[in-house]
Amino acid sequence: MNILFIMYDQLRFDYLGCAGHPHLKTPHFDRVAAMGVQFTNAYVQSPICGSSRMCYYTGRYASSHGAQWNNFPLRVGEQTLGDHLRKLGMDCWLLGKTHMKADAAGMERLGLSPDSTIGARQAECGFDTWIRDDGLWGYGPDGYYDEKRSPYNEYLKSKGYDGENPWADYANAGITDDQIASGWMFRNAGEPANIAEQDSETPWLTSRTIEFMEQATGTWCAHVSFIKPHWPYIVPAPYHNMFGREHVPPARRHEVERENPHPVYGAYQDNKVAKAFQRDEVREKVIPAYMGLIKQCDDQLGRLLDHLEATDTLKDTMIVLTSDHGDYLGDHWLGEKDLFHEQSVKVPLIVYDPRSTAHPTRGTTCDALVESIDLAATFVEAAGGKVPDHIIEGRSLLPWLRGETPDWRTFAISEYDYSCTPHAAKLGVEPRDARLFMVFDGRFKLIHAEGGMRPMLFDLIEDPDEFHDLAKGQAHQPQIEQLYGMLAQWGRRMSQRVTRSEDDIKAMRGKSLGKGILPFMYDGSEVDEKYTAKYRGPVRQRHVGDTDA
Amino acid sequence: MNILFIMYDQLRFDYLGCAGHPHLKTPHFDRVAAMGVQFTNAYVQSPICGSSRMCYYTGRYASSHGAQWNNFPLRVGEQTLGDHLRKLGMDCWLLGKTHMKADAAGMERLGLSPDSTIGARQAECGFDTWIRDDGLWGYGPDGYYDEKRSPYNEYLKSKGYDGENPWADYANAGITDDQIASGWMFRNAGEPANIAEQDSETPWLTSRTIEFMEQATGTWCAHVSFIKPHWPYIVPAPYHNMFGREHVPPARRHEVERENPHPVYGAYQDNKVAKAFQRDEVREKVIPAYMGLIKQCDDQLGRLLDHLEATDTLKDTMIVLTSDHGDYLGDHWLGEKDLFHEQSVKVPLIVYDPRSTAHPTRGTTCDALVESIDLAATFVEAAGGKVPDHIIEGRSLLPWLRGETPDWRTFAISEYDYSCTPHAAKLGVEPRDARLFMVFDGRFKLIHAEGGMRPMLFDLIEDPDEFHDLAKGQAHQPQIEQLYGMLAQWGRRMSQRVTRSEDDIKAMRGKSLGKGILPFMYDGSEVDEKYTAKYRGPVRQRHVGDTDA
Repeated sequence: MNILFIMYDQLRFDYLGCAGHPHLKTPHFDRVAAMGVQFTNAYVQSPICGSSRMCYYTGRYASSHGAQWNNFPLRVGEQTLGDHLRKLGMDCWLLGKTHMKADAAGMERLGLSPDSTIGARQAECGFDTWIRDDGLWGYGPDGYYDEKRSPYNEYLKSKGYDGENPWADYANAGITDDQIASGWMFRNAGEPANIAEQDSETPWLTSRTIEFMEQATGTWCAHVSFIKPHWPYIVPAPYHNMFGREHVPPARRHEVERENPHPVYGAYQDNKVAKAFQRDEVREKVIPAYMGLIKQCDDQLGRLLDHLEATDTLKDTMIVLTSDHGDYLGDHWLGEKDLFHEQSVKVPLIVYDPRSTAHPTRGTTCDALVESIDLAATFVEAAGGKVPDHIIEGRSLLPWLRGETPDWRTFAISEYDYSCTPHAAKLGVEPRDARLFMVFDGRFKLIHAEGGMRPMLFDLIEDPDEFHDLAKGQAHQPQIEQLYGMLAQWGRRMSQRVTRSEDDIKAMRGKSLGKGILPFMYDGSEVDEKYTAKYRGPVRQRHVGDTDA
Repeated sequence: MNILFIMYDQLRFDYLGCAGHPHLKTPHFDRVAAMGVQFTNAYVQSPICGSSRMCYYTGRYASSHGAQWNNFPLRVGEQTLGDHLRKLGMDCWLLGKTHMKADAAGMERLGLSPDSTIGARQAECGFDTWIRDDGLWGYGPDGYYDEKRSPYNEYLKSKGYDGENPWADYANAGITDDQIASGWMFRNAGEPANIAEQDSETPWLTSRTIEFMEQATGTWCAHVSFIKPHWPYIVPAPYHNMFGREHVPPARRHEVERENPHPVYGAYQDNKVAKAFQRDEVREKVIPAYMGLIKQCDDQLGRLLDHLEATDTLKDTMIVLTSDHGDYLGDHWLGEKDLFHEQSVKVPLIVYDPRSTAHPTRGTTCDALVESIDLAATFVEAAGGKVPDHIIEGRSLLPWLRGETPDWRTFAISEYDYSCTPHAAKLGVEPRDARLFMVFDGRFKLIHAEGGMRPMLFDLIEDPDEFHDLAKGQAHQPQIEQLYGMLAQWGRRMSQRVTRSEDDIKAMRGKSLGKGILPFMYDGSEVDEKYTAKYRGPVRQRHVGDTDA
């Protein structure tokens, strides 16, 4: 069985037909959901691209692997999906975005060249790179945000799109008054991108994926990682006007959220993107474009499914559809992601396992508390391995797919490191304290902030919209304490004992006895005489010869 | 300035003259204490050789580096003293014991050969090896405990001590009735070891250290790491009978400790070494030998000090004397180390800094809560560096040596992983749950056990002997909760964000704006026009040529 591990970027859990969106029809996502299981409570371990992805790729919490924000390098030697799957005879390929930053200092310290196979994998979080393009070709007075080469820009140039950065000028810009109307500006979100639809980012990567599959031999996991529907919010025709302001729901926000908010939440409410999404005209421009981008993703997913059917490989391919985090889109007075409301931290997760063991659950939903790190464990088990649970902290989802009800976690954790943001400076918080933790037990969601601030608490049963921060009052101390207990338990987890498995340890027990380590004997009668045999015998005399001083 | 970082193995904090021992005179330890500062509340991060040492060498907690027990390899790439000091132009040498187990699997994964300089350092926890000998040449029906070469055994053989393992047959054995009287058996502890005193382990390593210093150039830190007074408890003449049963204090133990003990403590009370040390004849044999071993260490320390004086280098050499953990010697009904009573987890720590900045504190004691991980930070600062506090979790002791009173930690942490012991199996605890945590705030000491057991609590002011486990009752819930709060705070510490320093992060802030990442604009007026310049301009038309599909 091969694995098609498809990630969309910034795809909200509720912007799919199968998730109940009232206007957005996504027949191809729905088709996978009908073949597989839709997990309705899937949480990412950090609601920000880079860190979330490193959690997916390592199967470990952000605090465990340390790549806690975009462009914090994943430390050299940290084990990834590639390490685990290759051991099981499964190749592990990347097509698209990872937001991985190589630990260049660590690689240099260990003498690893990025040109070597080992070094290249270290630099690409364990993947072999079929094509890497993070889709963030922003440029400004200080140069490019991403200094690597852009296969997508190279593609566009080969197709006759001119200029230094056709990603910006064509794929992510429309035209107004014969001027470039950049997709960076929300007022342009309704313009059609100035690009042939088949040359835009999602079809481009889909075509590359089909090329990959056509040549692939052996058993593989392919991480197909689309930049869209991530901003810039702009999409080519015909997707640019499939949706209009009539499809834009009112923002899910409440005045009570602005009353004495938690300091960190308050800071985010006041940031530039939040201010923008608090304007109706922004939501009315952006959300239809966002929906168009998703619609395009769905159509391109259809191409992939059709290819699998046409080649009769659907029966041998596990398909996973998910995202690295959501998008507030103006809900809770916020834009972007970063915090822990459902719009940000919950992701779509659909898993299709072609094997007969998964027949009992096809087309069902599962509301278990799932963490994104569970996929790494799932893939290892799907590849026929035993999950190395001294390294991978997630848990295989395969039992759920088989229709079993395994003992399962009672809380999910997510983390956010805002040390690089201006909010940390504004709040007077040192980088090491600019960290947030979410604990969610399926009903109550606690957010702890380091640095001496109070927590936040939401009751998702009584208040599914998460408007009322119960930690403002005193009535929920018992729940707060219970969730803090869970966070403390998690804080004591064993996350770095990665060089000895549970089985290794059991096998080590008592072994020192047979190797003559016996610091407990009075006279030797305490153990079988075979253990002391080497320590007994007639005394010998040293031969003092000319070597003696 | 050079650093002589001297470690003894299993040296109890209170078995030194300067620590107030009533019978054991250690004029050379005392001499260093008179020149420097004696830290009277120094705690190791794990009371077991291998794990404690990896904490010293990394400056990180056991849960942070993951080498939580003897022979759990330190993961490849984990940064050590060697990495930090070499960057500052200071060499970092090993002479003696580390108990390091190389992460061979990790090295192979990264293509590191143990023969390369980088690989050799990885395999030796960052040190360049002048001489490595762990002094545990136990052997039995299953072979050697330590499968490396033994420079000490090679030395003995070169001196005419014959047989396969003269470490066992001569250095750690006496003679009874013309038979080898192994030091493994406590009844033989009073015999003189069958070896010329100058060939025994402590003088041997001292001589190697003097040779090292005689040839050393440049600036260096030398970790001189003696195996003694660690078992086997046997010492050559004249040290074997310097002390007798009249110097053996009564065991510090109380019947109340045997009444309904904490399950883990109860299991340790019943283990083989505890049973042995519960016998008076064991203590009366072992403790005089242990004292003799320390006396020999003291004399050999005198040789080192004399050498430094004779070469006029005392004024350029920082000297640190410490241990990896203590030894119960029958106190609390226990033998060995492993748990968190003061006898096990507290260590001697004497630091002499030759520089004038340390003049104000010479000959004083300091009762700050010190952790063994503080030495790595101390050495980095002593070498002229800024402590990389995103990697090293300890704090420099130099402010104390200068007579300052820095803001300081309010609690110390120690950990113990007993997953490899038979106790874990007996208690029905899985390897991942066989972990203990100590939190000590200077008065109350809480011990938390994973796996659903109750904690232990001691009040060291009311009960300095730690006989009365206050967690058996309900009266100390507030203290228990407070210490659990400290443990939870520690559990949330930032320990793996090792690829970005605090300064790096501050420097990253706001940098994406200048690189064209602007996902918050409605029309571009929100930012200076230089930031959007590259996104504006007359629209261009794609040049569709023969490359188009």
